[in-house]
Amino acid sequence: MFIDRLVNEIKRKQSCVLVGLDPRLEYIPESFKKPYFKEYGKNLEAVGEILLAYNKGIMDHVSDIAPAVKPQIAFYEQYGLPGLRAYLETCKYAKSKNLVVIGDVKRGDIGTTSKAYSNAHLGYVDVEGERFNTFATDAITTNPYLGDDCLKEFMEDIQRENGMFVLIKTSNPTSGQLQDREIDGKKVYEIVAEIVYEWSLKTIGECGYSSVGGVVAATHPQQAKTLRRLMKKAYFLVPGYGAQGGTVEDILGCFNEDGLGAIINSSRGIMYAYMKKDKNYDPENFGEAAREETIAMTKSINEGIKTIIK
Amino acid sequence: MFIDRLVNEIKRKQSCVLVGLDPRLEYIPESFKKPYFKEYGKNLEAVGEILLAYNKGIMDHVSDIAPAVKPQIAFYEQYGLPGLRAYLETCKYAKSKNLVVIGDVKRGDIGTTSKAYSNAHLGYVDVEGERFNTFATDAITTNPYLGDDCLKEFMEDIQRENGMFVLIKTSNPTSGQLQDREIDGKKVYEIVAEIVYEWSLKTIGECGYSSVGGVVAATHPQQAKTLRRLMKKAYFLVPGYGAQGGTVEDILGCFNEDGLGAIINSSRGIMYAYMKKDKNYDPENFGEAAREETIAMTKSINEGIKTIIK
Repeated sequence: MFIDRLVNEIKRKQSCVLVGLDPRLEYIPESFKKPYFKEYGKNLEAVGEILLAYNKGIMDHVSDIAPAVKPQIAFYEQYGLPGLRAYLETCKYAKSKNLVVIGDVKRGDIGTTSKAYSNAHLGYVDVEGERFNTFATDAITTNPYLGDDCLKEFMEDIQRENGMFVLIKTSNPTSGQLQDREIDGKKVYEIVAEIVYEWSLKTIGECGYSSVGGVVAATHPQQAKTLRRLMKKAYFLVPGYGAQGGTVEDILGCFNEDGLGAIINSSRGIMYAYMKKDKNYDPENFGEAAREETIAMTKSINEGIKTIIK
Repeated sequence: MFIDRLVNEIKRKQSCVLVGLDPRLEYIPESFKKPYFKEYGKNLEAVGEILLAYNKGIMDHVSDIAPAVKPQIAFYEQYGLPGLRAYLETCKYAKSKNLVVIGDVKRGDIGTTSKAYSNAHLGYVDVEGERFNTFATDAITTNPYLGDDCLKEFMEDIQRENGMFVLIKTSNPTSGQLQDREIDGKKVYEIVAEIVYEWSLKTIGECGYSSVGGVVAATHPQQAKTLRRLMKKAYFLVPGYGAQGGTVEDILGCFNEDGLGAIINSSRGIMYAYMKKDKNYDPENFGEAAREETIAMTKSINEGIKTIIK
C-alpha cells in the first residue's frame, strides 16, 4: 500500500521532509538556463528542458536523504505541453530514484470526471484492451468542495496502490474565509476532516496509518492539533513550513506520539537554498545547497519530534 | 470584455446552449476510431487524434448555432500529453470558429500557484521577454475552497479579457454534504456566492453582466432561484441539464427577467446524440445528430425563457 511505502521511506531515511518541486524560472540561475535557450531558442521547449534538468539536479542531491517529492503541477501546466512533459519526466525520474511522488494537483470534480482525474494521475487508461499509465504519481492532493462522490472515485486506485491527501485546512492567508466558518458548533475544516477520516479508515496499511490523508497547514498550529486528535490514523501533508512562516514549534502538533503522522513540505526553501545570502553558495552548486538545507531541516524537525515521542 | 463577447454570441445565435466537449472513447463510433488505430497503433497518440477529430466534427456542426463550448479537461488529461494536445487543439479550433471557449478545469490553489494556473489557462507566460499563450481559453471554472486569495489571482487576466465561473452549487448527488451546510443562518453555497459576487462587481461589462460568474447546477432549482436573487449581475454556468436529470422547468430560475443570465450545458446529450435509440441515426452522422439535438434543446429552452421575460 502507498502509506506503507511512504512510512518505510520515512523510517529508513529518518526524515519526514517532503521536497517540493515548484520550478520558477526566475529563481533558476542564469548560467544554468543559458545553454538551453541557446540550443532551443527562447521558447516553451527550452523552459521544459530547464525545469526538468533543474529538478534532476535537486533530486540527485536529496534522493538518499528525503523520503518524497511533491511537484506542484500548476508551475508546469503554465508552460503548456513542454511544461507538462517536464512534470511527467520529473515524476518518472523521481520514481527511478525510489522517491515517493506526491503530485500536488488539487483535482476534484463530479463522479465520472473525478474518475478521469484518478486515471490521469494515479491509475491508468484503457485503450482497446491495452493499459497506459499517464502521469502515474504515487499519490495526489484533492479538493473536497464537491463532497463524497468526488472523493470516492479515487478510492479504486487508492485501494490498489495509491494515496491521496484531501485539502482540509490550507496555508494561505484567506483560508479561513470558508474553512473556519462554524456549522452547528463545528468548523468547516472539521466537517471536511470527518468526511475524509471516514474514507481513510477504509485503507489502513500495516503501519497503522491510512493511504487517505489530509492537507493541514503549518500556519495554523492550534487547528492542526485539533485535527490530529480528530483523525489519528490519517497522515498529514503539511505545507507552510519555512518560507510561508511555519516553525518547528508550529508543526509538532501534526505528529502523533509515535513520532509519525506528518510529512513536512518545503519548496522554495530547498529548491532555491543556493540564494540564501548568509551562505554564499555558488549558483552552480544549487544541488549541494538543497542537500544542506534538507539535512538542516530534517535535523531541526527530528529534534522537535524527540520532545513529543512517548 | 469576456462577458460582452459571450452575451453578444448568445444574442446573435439566439441560443444559450453551452456544448460540452467531454470525449469518451467508448461512446465514439467504432467506425470512426478504426482508421486512427490502424495508422497510429493502439496507443495514446491515436486516442489524441480521435478525440480532436471527433470534437472538430461536433464543432463543424454547431458553431453557427451555439455560442460556446466547454471542454472538460479531465477527459483529456487522462490520456497524458497526447490527450492534452487534443485539448489544446480543440480550444484553438473552437476559437477559429468564433466559439467562446470555457475550459472546465476547476483549478484553484494558494496565491502564486493560482497565478500559475491563470497563466496556463487564461493569460500567458513570459520567457525571456517573449509572451507565450499556453492553453489560452476565454474563461475557466475555478474552485473556491481556498478563499479569496485563490480567486484574486485570476482577476488580472479577467480584467484584461477573460472570465471565470466559480463553483457555487454543483450538480452531483453529494454536493450538499458540504455546500448545503448552514452557517449563521446561511448555507455554505450562499457564503461562497457572496464572496464570488463581490469579485463579480469589479468586472461588469457593457452588457450589464460580469466576467466573474458562478457554476450553479440545474439539479437544484430552488437553490438556483435563491442564488439568482443574490447575484443578479453574475452569469451562471448551469450543468446538470438533460443526462443528469435537469429539465427546462428546473433551469428557468437561473435566468433574469431580461431572458439572460445563464448558459445551459449539455455534454453527453449533444456529443453522443447519435446513440439515441428513437432517432435511428447512422453513427457516421454524429455531427448532424449533435446539430439536431442542439437545435431542439435551444428551442425548448427559448420557449421556457419566453414565459419569464418581463
